[in-house]
Amino acid sequence: MRIEEANEAVKTILPEKRYRHTLGVVATAEKLAEQYHANIEQAKLAAMLHDIAKYFSKEELSDIIKRRHDITNDILTFHHSLWHAPVGAAYIEEEYHITDKEVLDAIRYHTTGRQNMTLLDKIVFLADYIEPGREFPGVDEVRDLAEKNLDAAVGKSLQNTVTFLVERHQQVYPDTIYAYNTYIKYLRSCLNEQ
Amino acid sequence: MRIEEANEAVKTILPEKRYRHTLGVVATAEKLAEQYHANIEQAKLAAMLHDIAKYFSKEELSDIIKRRHDITNDILTFHHSLWHAPVGAAYIEEEYHITDKEVLDAIRYHTTGRQNMTLLDKIVFLADYIEPGREFPGVDEVRDLAEKNLDAAVGKSLQNTVTFLVERHQQVYPDTIYAYNTYIKYLRSCLNEQ
Repeated sequence: MRIEEANEAVKTILPEKRYRHTLGVVATAEKLAEQYHANIEQAKLAAMLHDIAKYFSKEELSDIIKRRHDITNDILTFHHSLWHAPVGAAYIEEEYHITDKEVLDAIRYHTTGRQNMTLLDKIVFLADYIEPGREFPGVDEVRDLAEKNLDAAVGKSLQNTVTFLVERHQQVYPDTIYAYNTYIKYLRSCLNEQ
Repeated sequence: MRIEEANEAVKTILPEKRYRHTLGVVATAEKLAEQYHANIEQAKLAAMLHDIAKYFSKEELSDIIKRRHDITNDILTFHHSLWHAPVGAAYIEEEYHITDKEVLDAIRYHTTGRQNMTLLDKIVFLADYIEPGREFPGVDEVRDLAEKNLDAAVGKSLQNTVTFLVERHQQVYPDTIYAYNTYIKYLRSCLNEQ
């Protein structure tokens, strides 16, 4: 699928505000891909499609999760805001016949992260977190880190995410803690060097 | 092993301060066991022996972890303060021929917790956290909760532990997040009822 087609698809499917967020993620992913020598076409395509299932109903999302053998059903016992990520990957495979595993995985793990993230995983995960439309406490610190050290920036955003969830008595999806445990080390090294 | 023998053993093995902590855990575990209708003998024995391996050297601890097939080696990639718990269980089995699985498990999981904790697991875990000698921010809140709802108190202590670790950029052992995810729900219900 070409980026222009993907753009048309999400423009139709997503509400205006989410579409603007998506374009922010695409621009940020492109910049990060240039800086960290990732494949720019993959980064833009994954970023463009990352939230495609964001507004599917809970029923649609859970139906797809139950039907697909490559999505662990335990995600249904966690907050439904996590469901659109693996469903988005399944959807673009089924509907647009996208078979690029790296693109599919970057979408699948863009909300939770995972233990060992590919370069593309990290770029889409981080672009989603720091795109120019995002405004929340701590986002500028992650933006600064992303200029210097991609792994440390991923570590910082995961630290923020776990803190946010635990403060609110919310569950933490296991992939997120596995990712946190991997990337917090890079943040620690990075801070020790300063 | 009778409680008197266990007392003699830990009195010999542990430094004075840790022995005093142990007696606090025994007293608190006994009280919790009465309140929540657990087996008092098991609770006192597990509490008495829970820190028996606390002052083993890192080499001794890691040798035992590597030798025992019932301890997952991945714990060696986490902070060494976690190692004494499964090693303690292994040690009392080998040295004192204790075979009571509930006592062994309560010691094994007293530091990390686990997804589904037995009543005895919870009592030893919590007694270790709130015994009278413990003084740290938040401990009184857990003491109060422990009077009302054991699961919510376990949830609160796990929430505190995860927060403590994440603030310090430290890794979180997976069992701890699985336990947190289980028991935070009880804390949430308990807080909603107030």
